[in-house]
Amino acid sequence: MNIPSKILENAVDQIASLPGIGKKTALRLALSLLKRSQSEVSDFVGAIDELKKSIRLCDTCYNLSDEKTCKVCSNAGRDQNIICIVEDIRDVMAIESTSQFKGVYHVLGGIISPMDGIGPNDLRINELIVRIENNKEIKELILALSTTMEGDTTAFYLYRKLETKGLEISTIARGVSIGDELEYIDEVTLGRSILHRTPYQNSLHRQS
Amino acid sequence: MNIPSKILENAVDQIASLPGIGKKTALRLALSLLKRSQSEVSDFVGAIDELKKSIRLCDTCYNLSDEKTCKVCSNAGRDQNIICIVEDIRDVMAIESTSQFKGVYHVLGGIISPMDGIGPNDLRINELIVRIENNKEIKELILALSTTMEGDTTAFYLYRKLETKGLEISTIARGVSIGDELEYIDEVTLGRSILHRTPYQNSLHRQS
Repeated sequence: MNIPSKILENAVDQIASLPGIGKKTALRLALSLLKRSQSEVSDFVGAIDELKKSIRLCDTCYNLSDEKTCKVCSNAGRDQNIICIVEDIRDVMAIESTSQFKGVYHVLGGIISPMDGIGPNDLRINELIVRIENNKEIKELILALSTTMEGDTTAFYLYRKLETKGLEISTIARGVSIGDELEYIDEVTLGRSILHRTPYQNSLHRQS
Repeated sequence: MNIPSKILENAVDQIASLPGIGKKTALRLALSLLKRSQSEVSDFVGAIDELKKSIRLCDTCYNLSDEKTCKVCSNAGRDQNIICIVEDIRDVMAIESTSQFKGVYHVLGGIISPMDGIGPNDLRINELIVRIENNKEIKELILALSTTMEGDTTAFYLYRKLETKGLEISTIARGVSIGDELEYIDEVTLGRSILHRTPYQNSLHRQS
């Protein structure tokens, strides 16, 4: 691509550095920004600048927050004694949008992944242990991690670290997605969902 | 979507205001920016800010430029007397990438489109007329506009405005794209390409 201006080229390169944005899309976005008024561009730039400068993590659960304590942790209506352990704040949003969980979270900030050079010490596992030791009321941990090798590794590591704390440790259910047709499901999922079958009475109860 | 922070929500809204970027993508981009260092985010924000503040249009052809005169207009190797009229600077880039045009450009900055409230006076048509009147050497205008109704309207308007100036006025060839199979071409294109057939000798000459 033959970009006629160094300034434009620089902006295009920066926008194309975002994940999933190629050079052509970046050019389209840069030109659309260029068509806006100065104040609109200032708002755009200000919002992103503010994002990095002012956003903070909740002191308790490390979810994103504008305050010292996030909305979930400061909500008296939520059970502070059930902690759902997730990889990322996007997982918090995904679980929140189901409206099925009334406890609180602990965001690890990643997942154990030797391929990417991420070990247990890069995650907020020590913070989790301190949190559990400081609050004897906590009764259940739910491991809500991805069903990938890295997720399983992290879950196993956490289980071994925490099994002696006298807490109930559960993991989110794995099995056939709602709406799936059996013939199209991969063998591993289907095989596991037969091994880990649940009493029909329970499944009725859980659906309600 | 349940975004836990006003600051993040504001950044997501701003990013989602870009064309073709939805809320979910905007969130992914915002979180990826959040993971970067402060100096990387400053570079990102600075490049976009600089884009709006420092970029300028070439005084002659209204192409984007860092200088008073763009690289095409200031290039002594290019024929200043053939002007290719285009809608947008993206069209300049597209034509430049073909390496087939050795003249200069005139960027209209849009196209006549009553549906969008854009009339002839919103485009740089007067600037084009002044440019032609000031330079008696100009001998050919090439109308390189989209083959849409708006493009055709603009071309016709320009032709009527300029036909008395004693210039050669041409339009880019319309017909079957290189590599197309005839059976899949729409009727209008195929019909026109039969009506406007060119002598076989000419087509040989132009390919070389």
